[in-house]
Amino acid sequence: MSDSLLLENGALWAGPDYYWPKGVLEIRNGKVSFAGPAESYRGREGFVGPRLDAGGGLIMPGLVNAHCHAPMVLFRGLADDLPLAVWLNEHMFPAEARWVNEEMTELCGLLAAAEMLLSGTTCVGDAYFCAGGAARAFERAGLRAVVAQGVIDFPAPGAPDPGRGLEVARRFVEEWQERSPLIRPALFAHSVYTCSPEKLKGVAALARETGAPWFTHLSETRDEVAQVRQTYGATPARHLETLGLLSGLQAAAHGVWLDREELELLAARGVSLVHCPESNRKLASGLADVAGWLRAGLAVGLGTDGAASNNDLDMIAEVRSAALGDKLKNLDPASLPASQALDMAWEGSARALGLQGRVGRLLPGFAGDAVVLDLDQPHFTPFFDAASALVYAGRGSDVRHAVVAGRPAVRDRQVLGFDLPEVMARVKSLARQVMGHG
Amino acid sequence: MSDSLLLENGALWAGPDYYWPKGVLEIRNGKVSFAGPAESYRGREGFVGPRLDAGGGLIMPGLVNAHCHAPMVLFRGLADDLPLAVWLNEHMFPAEARWVNEEMTELCGLLAAAEMLLSGTTCVGDAYFCAGGAARAFERAGLRAVVAQGVIDFPAPGAPDPGRGLEVARRFVEEWQERSPLIRPALFAHSVYTCSPEKLKGVAALARETGAPWFTHLSETRDEVAQVRQTYGATPARHLETLGLLSGLQAAAHGVWLDREELELLAARGVSLVHCPESNRKLASGLADVAGWLRAGLAVGLGTDGAASNNDLDMIAEVRSAALGDKLKNLDPASLPASQALDMAWEGSARALGLQGRVGRLLPGFAGDAVVLDLDQPHFTPFFDAASALVYAGRGSDVRHAVVAGRPAVRDRQVLGFDLPEVMARVKSLARQVMGHG
Repeated sequence: MSDSLLLENGALWAGPDYYWPKGVLEIRNGKVSFAGPAESYRGREGFVGPRLDAGGGLIMPGLVNAHCHAPMVLFRGLADDLPLAVWLNEHMFPAEARWVNEEMTELCGLLAAAEMLLSGTTCVGDAYFCAGGAARAFERAGLRAVVAQGVIDFPAPGAPDPGRGLEVARRFVEEWQERSPLIRPALFAHSVYTCSPEKLKGVAALARETGAPWFTHLSETRDEVAQVRQTYGATPARHLETLGLLSGLQAAAHGVWLDREELELLAARGVSLVHCPESNRKLASGLADVAGWLRAGLAVGLGTDGAASNNDLDMIAEVRSAALGDKLKNLDPASLPASQALDMAWEGSARALGLQGRVGRLLPGFAGDAVVLDLDQPHFTPFFDAASALVYAGRGSDVRHAVVAGRPAVRDRQVLGFDLPEVMARVKSLARQVMGHG
Repeated sequence: MSDSLLLENGALWAGPDYYWPKGVLEIRNGKVSFAGPAESYRGREGFVGPRLDAGGGLIMPGLVNAHCHAPMVLFRGLADDLPLAVWLNEHMFPAEARWVNEEMTELCGLLAAAEMLLSGTTCVGDAYFCAGGAARAFERAGLRAVVAQGVIDFPAPGAPDPGRGLEVARRFVEEWQERSPLIRPALFAHSVYTCSPEKLKGVAALARETGAPWFTHLSETRDEVAQVRQTYGATPARHLETLGLLSGLQAAAHGVWLDREELELLAARGVSLVHCPESNRKLASGLADVAGWLRAGLAVGLGTDGAASNNDLDMIAEVRSAALGDKLKNLDPASLPASQALDMAWEGSARALGLQGRVGRLLPGFAGDAVVLDLDQPHFTPFFDAASALVYAGRGSDVRHAVVAGRPAVRDRQVLGFDLPEVMARVKSLARQVMGHG
């Protein structure tokens, strides 16, 4: 079976409490069937399927990027270090209006998928327009994904008439509902300041009807909170609660400016938060109090956001930013320890995407979504503690292999699902057009 | 001549204002003799010396790490996520007392040098005890360095009698004064809270006498400022000024809690500051206002600090942390743009180490200290702007070659000066002893 795989000859870190210096990971039919110390593995003789030599490296669960706009890699570095309104209104929105279509989201989705797989991400929660393109790209790359079709009150790529945005979204969800074991379709209402109450209710109703989860951006900036308060007389989270929509919301991204009462409300309604520390810094949105979120009982995932506001899709760097940022927020070096920060990119992100119990661990029954890191490097020497090493000294380029549902998607840093050099050349060519040089 | 080299077949970024998509860098006798567009280079026929093919990558000045304690790589990840006093008093100080000696600083200096060269650093300002070991290591690795012997009021490795610490320092400076073109000896008074006024005056006098620059840690934490104020009735910077020592101070590391008046005082006295953003976050020291430092007219360099508080020595990540941190500090996405942050690791660090006009640029007359980055990667695709790409998406592993004074120290990611795998094995063995398993 091509979705069975035996990973051996490495340390196995199956989750925060499961570390074997010499471990074996057996995957059958896409799911973990054995995870444990090499000496207690008895299935080697009976295992039929390919083997992957970890080369003395570290086998661990693939990271889960819970908030991304993958096709925006096309706009990586197009307009940096600008005031938010200038960046958004003068650069991003016009570029999106002009260049985003299904072909673009597929092409750029492939590039983003490669970048994620090559830096240890095996599952992404992605939200963008023309979501079908990204879904096809992730499927081809072999990257697990919750792909959300964006809904907004403005004319958008693939939905020029905002009045028909929900129809476009319904079509996407229905098309992908049962199409691929790797892809789960979803909905993304852009925000409460870009979606009317009616639009938000429509998204929530479509989510209920189809069983697809829905997501939104929430309390990302102070300006947003002030603007929503002025328009609706309530903060963004309270506005959603008043509309009766918080209960069904799967997760909200950013949440930088949520107050304590709102955090408790979100926890009570079962809404997860997705922390995007690098984007929050680059766009100067602010520094979230993640330790406070966790104390409030919230499930907290981690995401890179799009590459136009990061500018990479490297989740290892994101985990580090989260861990270091919280120490700064609380002026306490013991705040958000490495292992807790890392688990935000495993279990936390899994919960944010509704995939808890399925990804984020390499225990029997979980998906066979694993990465292998090369530990034989100066920055991992010495190696006292796996969480500390990975979080405070690791980087995406340490990833040697990436496996999703038992199938290698990256082997020896080579993307297997498609011709990456060709995709890079096509993106560069498109980027030259974006710059007006094409 | 082995210190002449021709780098071609790449983009050449010789400094913030010098970028040629197809450039040539010619180094003769260790110094840049030509930097410019390939089509205007006329020296190819007459050039006698080896050539290095940049492979279509980016040739740029090596980064300058202006504050490091290189041998502390041995303690990388030994004790993380702990309150500062516990980390320092229960882990770092005892480990240093037990394990630091000339052999250790040489061995671990080699490992640190490899890590730095492999991540784009070609010059380091290092401060530690048993400085001779690190100096030998950097010389062997082919890494340019200002190596400072630490001076402190406690018994220290290599100087068990603090009363003779200045003698140890004098011996080190005299031994290295003329010994190697790559190594410049210096002095490091640990801090005003660990050095008496007499000790500080002794360091400053020795620096004046020998011409070696001296450095110190300054206003790193709020506690430090409070403690010094209580002991001496003045903040650390004002205490130094009262002692008449600010004028001769080359640079101070950290400076997180300096007030505006102190910044102006430092600027007036010609003291540079070295920003260490990742260490300041990991130890929860605070978030420095670097844009404010620059407005005050200060020269600002960048440093990683030691690997026990970072935990890597990757200057590209440090530049990103600086750029992102300042946006957060000022809640302004236009604060500390990528190019300005990067130049802190070129010109800023050069000034902090007293090497301005010698390193930080690849213009004629500057040292031939260059690195070549591999741009043919997903996270650099597309490539709209070099500063943005490097700062917001780059990582140390993008470095392919590193050249110091015209001699390759890293070629195709292989360290050339010594046997890195052997050094890593020896450090691992020593680390097992540190953990009590050796």
